[in-house]
Amino acid sequence: MDQTAFPEIPHRHETFTDGIALDCGVMLAPLDIAYRTYGTLNAARSNAVLICHALTGDQYVAEPHPLTGKPAWWGTLVGPDRPVDTNRYFVICANALGGCMGSTGPRSRRNPSSPEPWGIEFPPITVQDMVRAQKMLIDWLGITRLFAVVGGSMGGMQALAWASLFPEAVFAAVPVATAPYHSAQNIAFHEVGRQAIFADPDFHEGFYWAHGVIPARGLAVARMTAHITYLSEAALTRKFGRRLQGGSAMAPVLFGERFAVESYLEHQGSSFVRRFDANSYLCITRAMDFFDLAADHGGSLAAAFRGSKTRFLLVSFSSDWLFPTAESRAVARALNQAAANVSFVEIVSDKGHDAFLLDEPDFHRTVAGFLRGAAEAAGLP
Amino acid sequence: MDQTAFPEIPHRHETFTDGIALDCGVMLAPLDIAYRTYGTLNAARSNAVLICHALTGDQYVAEPHPLTGKPAWWGTLVGPDRPVDTNRYFVICANALGGCMGSTGPRSRRNPSSPEPWGIEFPPITVQDMVRAQKMLIDWLGITRLFAVVGGSMGGMQALAWASLFPEAVFAAVPVATAPYHSAQNIAFHEVGRQAIFADPDFHEGFYWAHGVIPARGLAVARMTAHITYLSEAALTRKFGRRLQGGSAMAPVLFGERFAVESYLEHQGSSFVRRFDANSYLCITRAMDFFDLAADHGGSLAAAFRGSKTRFLLVSFSSDWLFPTAESRAVARALNQAAANVSFVEIVSDKGHDAFLLDEPDFHRTVAGFLRGAAEAAGLP
Repeated sequence: MDQTAFPEIPHRHETFTDGIALDCGVMLAPLDIAYRTYGTLNAARSNAVLICHALTGDQYVAEPHPLTGKPAWWGTLVGPDRPVDTNRYFVICANALGGCMGSTGPRSRRNPSSPEPWGIEFPPITVQDMVRAQKMLIDWLGITRLFAVVGGSMGGMQALAWASLFPEAVFAAVPVATAPYHSAQNIAFHEVGRQAIFADPDFHEGFYWAHGVIPARGLAVARMTAHITYLSEAALTRKFGRRLQGGSAMAPVLFGERFAVESYLEHQGSSFVRRFDANSYLCITRAMDFFDLAADHGGSLAAAFRGSKTRFLLVSFSSDWLFPTAESRAVARALNQAAANVSFVEIVSDKGHDAFLLDEPDFHRTVAGFLRGAAEAAGLP
Repeated sequence: MDQTAFPEIPHRHETFTDGIALDCGVMLAPLDIAYRTYGTLNAARSNAVLICHALTGDQYVAEPHPLTGKPAWWGTLVGPDRPVDTNRYFVICANALGGCMGSTGPRSRRNPSSPEPWGIEFPPITVQDMVRAQKMLIDWLGITRLFAVVGGSMGGMQALAWASLFPEAVFAAVPVATAPYHSAQNIAFHEVGRQAIFADPDFHEGFYWAHGVIPARGLAVARMTAHITYLSEAALTRKFGRRLQGGSAMAPVLFGERFAVESYLEHQGSSFVRRFDANSYLCITRAMDFFDLAADHGGSLAAAFRGSKTRFLLVSFSSDWLFPTAESRAVARALNQAAANVSFVEIVSDKGHDAFLLDEPDFHRTVAGFLRGAAEAAGLP
């Protein structure tokens, strides 16, 4: 069994031996939650901010990635003197349930007494399961109420689910570039990626570890497809246009010259497989596809937030076609119907969905201002 | 050698033994052009309309497909009493150079004296090469001037190239849902499809026929990706929403329940591989990617049409995000700069790029009206 496609490294984590009851009915035990914290929890335990990561993100939100060495994935937003200021707040970020950076997921042992991993047989999980796992960590840290839950994309789905499941535990929520359900088009793009993984002969019906291989090419194609949806046509045109450059490692030699955008995607694909597990990708895309907050409340999104005292800041980006502004606006409408406290801002940017991770001063000013106001209302010093 | 993934059937064709000089410098001989005609050429040979097909289309524009039995692919536009009325016009449609329905392409013999096909070593072709091959057919049919050239998507690229290369031979041109160049985003989507094909172990670096297999799964993934881009989010939502249905043949059983949109895509992928060749897909997507009419004219799109007497009707569809209205508008602007005769219509539709093939009464009325006026100007009875 070879899991060394990317190395198994130690992550700071907490083990909950009683496990977690999943939405699918399975009791998953033990449950490991790998996490990082930044800053200091105050004596009142009232300054905690939970950051929820996106599909392929992880807990290393404000420090270099331990595998790739790349800068903090949300260093623009989280850190000392950043909008989510770690001098002021105690920031927590946990690897999502189903992930591959130390929290329980397909790479975890199925049974503590045997080294065999769950692999493709890992039980199906939901975004709500991810949130319940985080809640166990928050409880264990002795935090009754989070000052804020902040997340983009799938992280935004979690922020919405947190406010819906545990309204008393969330003083403020900042769901960014997200939606209350996954659209048919988004499901379709996920499905193409999954089919590329299934089609890879090294996938072995999900039992690739037993064969000492990983479905690297299929996973790379999945990542390439997804990556296009994270950008915008304008961003791709600005970055690459129709510029040509040298040959390719992956294409037949005879196929000849390549566009810069092709090399870029190829790089995105091939570097991704060195830090992410295919079964986790399947597991988490599936959780996103099944996310539908209104459906869980008899078709009424407002019902998901009825009586909520949480303060919401919803943020969308004008060129995001994966989670378009209309979907954030639908959440804002539902929150208004539920008489919740909601601000909604559409940031004008041509960088597509990825904008939430990039240098967008208007976005950062908006979050900083919202948190400042919320901290005042919460009586934080 | 097994090419029977889809059967090799006889197609009406003409063989040009002297062949064609390709843009890449290769002399491709002999050249076969497979084609269909509908209606009757008048005595003056002045009522011919050439239809140019899209990436995966073929010459069977106005009759059932000989392999799949499906209805004519552009039966909404072309046929008796249709906007391109075969009672009035002599309609010609040829399989594109590089295709797999009888025209010379990767499935053709590399050398007349040996059965070995070109396969992946088929020389790179351009949209202009496709047009020059069609011109040879038109000349052979004794037609000096086409009354009209009509095409959508890649067919629209050909209509533009026809008007640019052979202005005297095109009285009217109707480029639909197209662009004067392939955008970075479109190249990116094509590249994902190609990588899926390359990743299929049955691809064998393009020499799959020699192994008696086809890269069916990779080609299916390529088709699925492309198919999403042909639709719109609104169309996907209307057709499928988040409806669930039964299991899947392609996904691991354990992966469980599926969304209707996934089954639909899977069907699109698996039926496509029974009628299209992977090497043709590579060859033709590449021709589209390299299409850039302005670049061929020193960066000036207007220069591509300087002094043109052709009458143009440009049509775009409001929800087409593959070939957005802005790109048709750029062509209209260039044609105006070139003092050409141009009409431009954006059809309001939420059906995405595919709208050009569907029942869109406004589109059909527009084309019918334009051709009526052009026929009058051309002195057609």
